[in-house]
Amino acid sequence: MTIRVTVWGENVHEQKSEVVRGIYPDGMHNCIASALNKNEGIQASSVVLQDAEHGMTAERLAETDVLVWWGHAAHGQVDDAIVERVCEAVWSGMGMIFLHSAHFSKPFKRLMGAPCNLTWREAGERERLWVTSRNHPITAGLPDHFELENEEMYGEPFGVPEPLETVFVSWFQGGEVFRSGLTYKRGAGNVFYFRPGHETYPTYHDANVQTVIRNAVKWAYNPMARVAKPTDAPNVPVDRAPEKIEERGPKLHMAGQQGLR
Amino acid sequence: MTIRVTVWGENVHEQKSEVVRGIYPDGMHNCIASALNKNEGIQASSVVLQDAEHGMTAERLAETDVLVWWGHAAHGQVDDAIVERVCEAVWSGMGMIFLHSAHFSKPFKRLMGAPCNLTWREAGERERLWVTSRNHPITAGLPDHFELENEEMYGEPFGVPEPLETVFVSWFQGGEVFRSGLTYKRGAGNVFYFRPGHETYPTYHDANVQTVIRNAVKWAYNPMARVAKPTDAPNVPVDRAPEKIEERGPKLHMAGQQGLR
Amino acid sequence: MTIRVTVWGENVHEQKSEVVRGIYPDGMHNCIASALNKNEGIQASSVVLQDAEHGMTAERLAETDVLVWWGHAAHGQVDDAIVERVCEAVWSGMGMIFLHSAHFSKPFKRLMGAPCNLTWREAGERERLWVTSRNHPITAGLPDHFELENEEMYGEPFGVPEPLETVFVSWFQGGEVFRSGLTYKRGAGNVFYFRPGHETYPTYHDANVQTVIRNAVKWAYNPMARVAKPTDAPNVPVDRAPEKIEERGPKLHMAGQQGLR
Amino acid sequence: MTIRVTVWGENVHEQKSEVVRGIYPDGMHNCIASALNKNEGIQASSVVLQDAEHGMTAERLAETDVLVWWGHAAHGQVDDAIVERVCEAVWSGMGMIFLHSAHFSKPFKRLMGAPCNLTWREAGERERLWVTSRNHPITAGLPDHFELENEEMYGEPFGVPEPLETVFVSWFQGGEVFRSGLTYKRGAGNVFYFRPGHETYPTYHDANVQTVIRNAVKWAYNPMARVAKPTDAPNVPVDRAPEKIEERGPKLHMAGQQGLR
Repeated sequence: MTIRVTVWGENVHEQKSEVVRGIYPDGMHNCIASALNKNEGIQASSVVLQDAEHGMTAERLAETDVLVWWGHAAHGQVDDAIVERVCEAVWSGMGMIFLHSAHFSKPFKRLMGAPCNLTWREAGERERLWVTSRNHPITAGLPDHFELENEEMYGEPFGVPEPLETVFVSWFQGGEVFRSGLTYKRGAGNVFYFRPGHETYPTYHDANVQTVIRNAVKWAYNPMARVAKPTDAPNVPVDRAPEKIEERGPKLHMAGQQGLR
Repeated sequence: MTIRVTVWGENVHEQKSEVVRGIYPDGMHNCIASALNKNEGIQASSVVLQDAEHGMTAERLAETDVLVWWGHAAHGQVDDAIVERVCEAVWSGMGMIFLHSAHFSKPFKRLMGAPCNLTWREAGERERLWVTSRNHPITAGLPDHFELENEEMYGEPFGVPEPLETVFVSWFQGGEVFRSGLTYKRGAGNVFYFRPGHETYPTYHDANVQTVIRNAVKWAYNPMARVAKPTDAPNVPVDRAPEKIEERGPKLHMAGQQGLR
Repeated sequence: MTIRVTVWGENVHEQKSEVVRGIYPDGMHNCIASALNKNEGIQASSVVLQDAEHGMTAERLAETDVLVWWGHAAHGQVDDAIVERVCEAVWSGMGMIFLHSAHFSKPFKRLMGAPCNLTWREAGERERLWVTSRNHPITAGLPDHFELENEEMYGEPFGVPEPLETVFVSWFQGGEVFRSGLTYKRGAGNVFYFRPGHETYPTYHDANVQTVIRNAVKWAYNPMARVAKPTDAPNVPVDRAPEKIEERGPKLHMAGQQGLR
Repeated sequence: MTIRVTVWGENVHEQKSEVVRGIYPDGMHNCIASALNKNEGIQASSVVLQDAEHGMTAERLAETDVLVWWGHAAHGQVDDAIVERVCEAVWSGMGMIFLHSAHFSKPFKRLMGAPCNLTWREAGERERLWVTSRNHPITAGLPDHFELENEEMYGEPFGVPEPLETVFVSWFQGGEVFRSGLTYKRGAGNVFYFRPGHETYPTYHDANVQTVIRNAVKWAYNPMARVAKPTDAPNVPVDRAPEKIEERGPKLHMAGQQGLR
């Protein structure tokens, strides 16, 4: 059993900024994928915004068990039809992990149904992440807390729905806090948001961060077969009702007619 | 303190179907609004799909404390820009109640981030709603269960996110069950989904159903001032950080620059 | 409509420690009750551990809409039978607010079903509370964050169940974070945990803290009639089943027999 | 990696009732354990109420990854100290599954902090369980619904806290519904409640029920090391604070002193 991971990278700052290219010469997406590939049972590769269909073809999504998404500068360039396709894959059972500035990516906003906003500051300050759900699978191998010496600050209130579980909360040197690890389920798919990863710092080279992403991939992975038509609303005709009933009263729909939507 | 309610009606089947018009001669929306207006402290009126901007102007939303939504045949005719405006009103603190087939309305799907699908059967069968959260404000004045002699069946799995609370679960004569009362919060806004209300039955004339909707209006109402810019992600400059810090490391953003989104 | 509040005080450190007596000459419980009594619609009084039945007679509980609990040094002296009586009152619909070190009180541990442990440090450090649920009723009148210049530190992991909603998260000067405002429902009763309030600091004189407690009282208050027998598990005989059925198969219970428990 | 399961059986009705003995000649606990043992990667055995320390010695709990509990007639005979020991094992990370009438067992009531009551009827009626959380691991291999031709009815309101996820909802022939599969986390331990299993019917011989229990064992199992002292509340001295701070203000505790509890 191998978990097939696709890392989606925006690949914009790596091209424009020498600072970012210096830290991630092969792109952030490939740094993340390489770290995942060091683990037995995980097979990761990457696609980028600039690929045809942003690399998110139906075939690719069908062969992806867990999708990892990092974007920042070009959220608006992601095609709405592709966003819907990605969300349908999640609803059918694909796991999905959103990293850092992907809080404002189209698929995350679409899956949350909420503004997903926050406060922020780019000052290279210290972040300390605390585990708030003991022995949660996403925390395997981690101490009770770990530090990132330089990170961008994200502050509360974070405009997301109440999660299934709050796994991490961050402390920032400048005085803010942030719920930095949150789990959700949408349709048949597991979703995890993880805060760290500003592109001007070497966050994705950090061993603890790599551990979290690896654990999250395993947590989000669902070995069950994908739901074939995750948005279908099938009619159950009277003669196939689990209990015998007789039709009564006035009707809108003719027999065999599709539901309205 | 008066709660200002707007009932949004699709107003399609009332025009096309004699059955529906017979039950709701003034339209379903006006039946719901009238029932609400019998309560001290609630002032309800209605708008319809066919109104300019579907009746959902910025002014109207600003003056609406709680929005009630019923739609079925014409979900696709609701303009996407209006949907976004309605969702922003919810995020700013407006309460919202979705009735029955509004499970497939654009604003509900947008706020849930999920497929919102289900199974269904139009057979006029008996539905019995059970209270699953004792003394929840939405159940005030209700017995432990109540019946609707003729209703459309909606069956699980219901493709929505896990709610804050499950308030009602329905039993159907034909053998299905459905989580028929669910609470959510999106941004600063309270959201309630309530299942009953197929247009060919007199459901909105039922006293218990009217009680639920009245209670839900009170529950969803938030007297606090609306959040002014519910999707804003403000920068907190270094010199305004709650704790004194010094800027460190490389940066993407110039001082005073807007965040990317 | 007046909300009747009882503030339960342990009243031990006020007697033993000059520091505590200096800050709370009438006891912490009376400071909290006095602040509540400044609000129209709230009528608060206090009882203490040393009262007969710790002040928690059946009569008192029946006349209490919301119970506020502060204890620290003498959790073990609270009689188990009284704890059970308090929990039954919550299950019947009484609201309950636990303050600070009451995380280790018997009623809180009993209602949570969890260890309720944490890390701590008594160093008079700065605490900053951030609102994490925008426009939650418990945050009415508060800014996005507020500070307490001297507080005891409580750190994660906090051994409590995932709450209905996380309302506040605290930042501490020494580097820790804590989920400091959490909502729960147990039986028919609303429960709120609020972190601040170490006895050697003037926390309950703070205006923002008083606002939170007042809001929490209003949020926890349930005007519906108390559930008469909140632990009853009534039999529904065959002839009173909502749907007509016939008894089948072997049985353990004779007609009219009580359930086992 | 083998999951070590202990099935705890009350073993009372098997001794007293010929009906129960006829269906479960080796006891219900051994029927459940045998079914589990047919699965690779699971090693199940059983203990009973009548064993020394009810079979729940510290050693046994330390070697149990997942504990399955069935009781009905003799909840009151379970020693309180053993109940606390079992709960501490859960808090340290042991998984636990409660079956049917164990809703009124001491460990379940202790872990829920709620009345855990319901309505009931012993009439051998039909129960139909519906999956409400698509592709939840506990539903692997199941259809969207399955039936038990003869079961005891349990009806809402079920007096438990809102779960992390509602996995199953039951339909009963007599007109009731019940949330029959619920997940919780308490401390580091995963907890699952599953409704079916009245002792006078052959429920634990049913293939779908066996599938649910097997899936639940896998879901509840946590391979991480147990938390050593799951109720500890350690002090973090000033000189070991993550950030450098200086002690300020008055204190209750002397250096090195234990916290109060």
